[in-house]
Amino acid sequence: MGGSTFGERFAVTTFGESHGGALGVIIDGCPARIELSEAEVQVDLDRRRPGQSRIVTQRQEADRVTIHSGVFEGLTLGTPIGMTVANTDARAGAYSEMATKYRPSHADYTTEAKYGIRNWQGGGRASARETVGRVAAGAVARKILATVGTEVLGWVSSVRDINADVDPAEVTRDDVEADPTRCADPVAAGRIIEAIDAARRDGNSLGGVVACVARGVPPGLGEPVFDKLDAELAGAVMSLPAAKGMEIGSGFAGTLMTGRTHNDEFAPGPDGRPVTVTNRSGGIQGGISNGADIVLRVAFKPTATIASEQKTVTNANEATVLAARGRHDPCVLPRAVPMVEAMVCLVLADHLLRQQTTQLAPGPASQT
Amino acid sequence: MGGSTFGERFAVTTFGESHGGALGVIIDGCPARIELSEAEVQVDLDRRRPGQSRIVTQRQEADRVTIHSGVFEGLTLGTPIGMTVANTDARAGAYSEMATKYRPSHADYTTEAKYGIRNWQGGGRASARETVGRVAAGAVARKILATVGTEVLGWVSSVRDINADVDPAEVTRDDVEADPTRCADPVAAGRIIEAIDAARRDGNSLGGVVACVARGVPPGLGEPVFDKLDAELAGAVMSLPAAKGMEIGSGFAGTLMTGRTHNDEFAPGPDGRPVTVTNRSGGIQGGISNGADIVLRVAFKPTATIASEQKTVTNANEATVLAARGRHDPCVLPRAVPMVEAMVCLVLADHLLRQQTTQLAPGPASQT
Amino acid sequence: MGGSTFGERFAVTTFGESHGGALGVIIDGCPARIELSEAEVQVDLDRRRPGQSRIVTQRQEADRVTIHSGVFEGLTLGTPIGMTVANTDARAGAYSEMATKYRPSHADYTTEAKYGIRNWQGGGRASARETVGRVAAGAVARKILATVGTEVLGWVSSVRDINADVDPAEVTRDDVEADPTRCADPVAAGRIIEAIDAARRDGNSLGGVVACVARGVPPGLGEPVFDKLDAELAGAVMSLPAAKGMEIGSGFAGTLMTGRTHNDEFAPGPDGRPVTVTNRSGGIQGGISNGADIVLRVAFKPTATIASEQKTVTNANEATVLAARGRHDPCVLPRAVPMVEAMVCLVLADHLLRQQTTQLAPGPASQT
Amino acid sequence: MGGSTFGERFAVTTFGESHGGALGVIIDGCPARIELSEAEVQVDLDRRRPGQSRIVTQRQEADRVTIHSGVFEGLTLGTPIGMTVANTDARAGAYSEMATKYRPSHADYTTEAKYGIRNWQGGGRASARETVGRVAAGAVARKILATVGTEVLGWVSSVRDINADVDPAEVTRDDVEADPTRCADPVAAGRIIEAIDAARRDGNSLGGVVACVARGVPPGLGEPVFDKLDAELAGAVMSLPAAKGMEIGSGFAGTLMTGRTHNDEFAPGPDGRPVTVTNRSGGIQGGISNGADIVLRVAFKPTATIASEQKTVTNANEATVLAARGRHDPCVLPRAVPMVEAMVCLVLADHLLRQQTTQLAPGPASQT
Repeated sequence: MGGSTFGERFAVTTFGESHGGALGVIIDGCPARIELSEAEVQVDLDRRRPGQSRIVTQRQEADRVTIHSGVFEGLTLGTPIGMTVANTDARAGAYSEMATKYRPSHADYTTEAKYGIRNWQGGGRASARETVGRVAAGAVARKILATVGTEVLGWVSSVRDINADVDPAEVTRDDVEADPTRCADPVAAGRIIEAIDAARRDGNSLGGVVACVARGVPPGLGEPVFDKLDAELAGAVMSLPAAKGMEIGSGFAGTLMTGRTHNDEFAPGPDGRPVTVTNRSGGIQGGISNGADIVLRVAFKPTATIASEQKTVTNANEATVLAARGRHDPCVLPRAVPMVEAMVCLVLADHLLRQQTTQLAPGPASQT
Repeated sequence: MGGSTFGERFAVTTFGESHGGALGVIIDGCPARIELSEAEVQVDLDRRRPGQSRIVTQRQEADRVTIHSGVFEGLTLGTPIGMTVANTDARAGAYSEMATKYRPSHADYTTEAKYGIRNWQGGGRASARETVGRVAAGAVARKILATVGTEVLGWVSSVRDINADVDPAEVTRDDVEADPTRCADPVAAGRIIEAIDAARRDGNSLGGVVACVARGVPPGLGEPVFDKLDAELAGAVMSLPAAKGMEIGSGFAGTLMTGRTHNDEFAPGPDGRPVTVTNRSGGIQGGISNGADIVLRVAFKPTATIASEQKTVTNANEATVLAARGRHDPCVLPRAVPMVEAMVCLVLADHLLRQQTTQLAPGPASQT
Repeated sequence: MGGSTFGERFAVTTFGESHGGALGVIIDGCPARIELSEAEVQVDLDRRRPGQSRIVTQRQEADRVTIHSGVFEGLTLGTPIGMTVANTDARAGAYSEMATKYRPSHADYTTEAKYGIRNWQGGGRASARETVGRVAAGAVARKILATVGTEVLGWVSSVRDINADVDPAEVTRDDVEADPTRCADPVAAGRIIEAIDAARRDGNSLGGVVACVARGVPPGLGEPVFDKLDAELAGAVMSLPAAKGMEIGSGFAGTLMTGRTHNDEFAPGPDGRPVTVTNRSGGIQGGISNGADIVLRVAFKPTATIASEQKTVTNANEATVLAARGRHDPCVLPRAVPMVEAMVCLVLADHLLRQQTTQLAPGPASQT
Repeated sequence: MGGSTFGERFAVTTFGESHGGALGVIIDGCPARIELSEAEVQVDLDRRRPGQSRIVTQRQEADRVTIHSGVFEGLTLGTPIGMTVANTDARAGAYSEMATKYRPSHADYTTEAKYGIRNWQGGGRASARETVGRVAAGAVARKILATVGTEVLGWVSSVRDINADVDPAEVTRDDVEADPTRCADPVAAGRIIEAIDAARRDGNSLGGVVACVARGVPPGLGEPVFDKLDAELAGAVMSLPAAKGMEIGSGFAGTLMTGRTHNDEFAPGPDGRPVTVTNRSGGIQGGISNGADIVLRVAFKPTATIASEQKTVTNANEATVLAARGRHDPCVLPRAVPMVEAMVCLVLADHLLRQQTTQLAPGPASQT
């Protein structure tokens, strides 16, 4: 494969470039009889789409989703769910210079190194536009997770050195959506907007950190070796454009502690299962969920495509300069929130299904 | 599957618990006609094995590998390579208390939540012993990478707050192996040994960071969407026991920069291909290698199993206390170095093969 | 997954029901820089489509394909190729009775047993309409195979007891397409048309055998154990609707021979490689292609959906009778020819790519 | 991968050549808490092993299995089950001539065409000895199937033109094991023994057909498109050495019927689910099990390795002759019975688990 499929039981395959006719996704392995509508998928797509506020790219895409298959009378059929979204505001002209010049820190050169060919009319598969399919599929995964009481919620934790003060245990979707920054701390949000505006005016760009919590995850999800739940989450979020790092629970800061202070002691839980008194594990122990909140953080670098002039080379290996045109996010963070959530939802839904085969069901097959 | 297979073309499947009869691994998809001997595999296993120095666990395991198949007269056959290593110094008695008590921050509870059963005689699949198969397979992957001039080298970058001063571009295997800490900075190494000795005496444990560089990686490896090379590396290293975070290139620190300072400008390279003047990308752009050094860092938490008494619960959900017996690493870092290297080798070898199908070969099939 | 993906390197994922909005397919792993146009894909879709002649179903579907991604300026990009075909002539009304009644020997009951839900407006995923995506993808695979000189050609070998006299080594595409039966023997073709007409008038249906040859297959394709080339072909063609058996080379008749007469003796070949004097192996030995023609046969049962009244039960387990309405093929064989060819092309293209990783390429990665 | 893994949830990976040190298998994805012992696995291995009677190869291999992992106190742990069997009676000397000569209709030439190297000391992965791992894994799958009341039973249906008269609905394991031919018809069995003895004396070999029934399969197993249950069974049994064809239910003979006579009418079943009055579907409709007996037949060609002199070529493409030495089955059929059963068990166990994710479980995750 070419790496465009994600998940083992809840398997998602995407297609689409930033400047092709359409983007799409097939979900194979969605359980039957889940309520699903286009409107529900649209909610997350609207949170991801360009042009939603002045601090993101001004490309105007409605990103209306069409469900072509796999749903009947409002319920999933268990068969593949095919969905597409059209590209309507692609402007290839803005990219003509990039037909021969490689944008620094973008995928132009590496794409050509890999395939010997490149669609220079936009970022191709390396564009953030590629995440349309992920977010649409993530919205379906979210519906599955809701059936077991699992909720996934992300927010902007920092932009450059502006840090938000947000409690992962308490933050709500309303807190996050209250501001176009998707930073649930109003004070920090105000400073972030100013910083993004300044960066845009300056032909520059900013990076930051998205945090994400999954609450109500059943214990037992994840596999003990290669497919540890934290490993799967790491691979998932690090596959997002511009991601440069991720940590879970105590993360890098945890390396400064000792075992005695880092370990999460157990106490008897109210439902007969142990609970941890602290949560430095971030809800995962030995690669398997323990029922506590899963908390992770993802670092996104400053957007590579900027309007300032930079040194680069042509595909004939000659020195040149390039100042990008086109409409780009000066800071990907606000739109990265639904992307991170989508990837977390995909991992959890997949492992929820995988866990159903870890033990034999009482009556394992079929009903009429 | 149960998540014990890693890789798509160079596919590795492992078995074995810390206290079963043996551990093993099958490599399916190793190219034919690669020189391979048990002695070469043993080199990396010896760097991983317990008892190699006084700062690691004193469990005495020779970890001698046997290659059962897939090699003929010193060359790989292209067929599966089956390898096993025996468990010879397992002492189940040290674990009797853990039959009913869950070790804090270990996988005891989550394993039981997942499977409804647990081999309490050791850490099962959650033990660092599980990595025997990974390291053996990684040694084979290393041989493949050597054929294209790729070298993978890790070292201990920090233990708790003791930071090593190491240049990723220059550090050598000899530098790393000069000291049992595998910290290529002799001054820091001395302080690390003291810290580990102190932790052990105190019934405590330490964490830290392993850094790893891959030099000479051909441009073009990695897939543009879910299987980005950085995503695959993230999933790989985060599947190691005790890993809590990873970053690549500029990582979390890169979020403090702006696009103008973060971007790696291109300059004409000597062989007709562009080179980057800086390497904040860490050798990967848009998920695909660009030919520069791949540099990553992995955070490992302090070892969970400690000799100090901690509060926990029994499998009947009753409060109790536990002080681990058994022989455990007070700091996993020195032994984590070959583990990280192995996972990086597995990812790179797999993508080296995958890249061979990205374009049609001039004469794509067969020779006699 | 839900089993809607086929292939390991050339991986095809389909969606779509007979009466949903559209059908589609994503090809992930198609090599870059293959010439490809919608018109080329359309050729095979036209051979598969309903209404192409009076002996097939009269449902009127143009089955025009749209390529949404993965192709740029007439060349494949190496990224996923997304294609869709609309459903335009679905008539759900003809199926209203089937909302509660199970058609004998169709998938109505088993679908409900599996999922607990069923789109009764047509055959859902069990309809022959599902093969649109396979045939579109097969047309792309055919282009890849052409680059190495491999040609795949099927024909109707028998309908009921009417057997065609066709030489697998000599038959041409023109021979096959000369008649709507796709039986390359004009005499048999005439009798087959009469038989199909009679069956339709009688509210009955017919089965038969499709034969298929692949010429110019490079030696070395296929894996020696589970993924033998014959096993992969078997799984491929047996996944077509109504397939009940398959054989390769000497097949079932070969069991009547002895080793001495069955074995294909080798003779020195003109290009330094051995050739077989006979071809009872059907071009595959030990699961791997030997360069001789691959010859296989697929048995298709008579179409299950017939206009005659049959006994059945309702989804309340009550006895009833059913005579199907709707527009159905009285004999699937003519349209099964491009379906069989498509599946054979998918298998061969996938293994052509897989073979490219069996040995290390001289310069294994990348070019600019 | 190199095609040595089979199954998606119950995933089996094998290693081992006929003349290497050992053969082995890893089962990843076996559910937890299934009772399992080495003795149970040994039962099927004993039915497969060489030297069990005078009509099979006289190579003497005890084929004692060792379970290294994944089982604790008689129950599966849910973790990978690693098993090995040693090669003890390999006699490479008998193969020295084959270092340069290709056996007709064997895999010698194609292996070299594929890999550019070959272990000429025996048949390598193409040897029937490779099936040790399959049969060991099949025995575990059989245990899983037993928990839902599914039984899998094969027998020799014909050898050359000697046909057994056996009722698939009634035949028992005792009937099959009553005779070394594994032909449950005593009269035919006697004739088969005579035919095999004659073939051996003549330096010749025989082929035939193995039939297999699976009783008590729950409705709902199998996927509707590529992974149809019949497609998966086809791929499974056609991956066995020497298989040349397979059919299910009415098979090739069904093409001679019409839809009206071929269709299996439904009648109300005693447990609220429909039953079919006839079973021309062979227990599978639309790729999904319907609860009726699954009945299939596999054609095996005459053994390729015979003691008679045959024309062939050397690896220098020079004409020569070859008369095989070594100890080979003059007729693989008696030992093919447990091999076919194993593959059928692997497919059914895998789909039993896959079916558990088709709908959300009432309480989908974990218990303690």
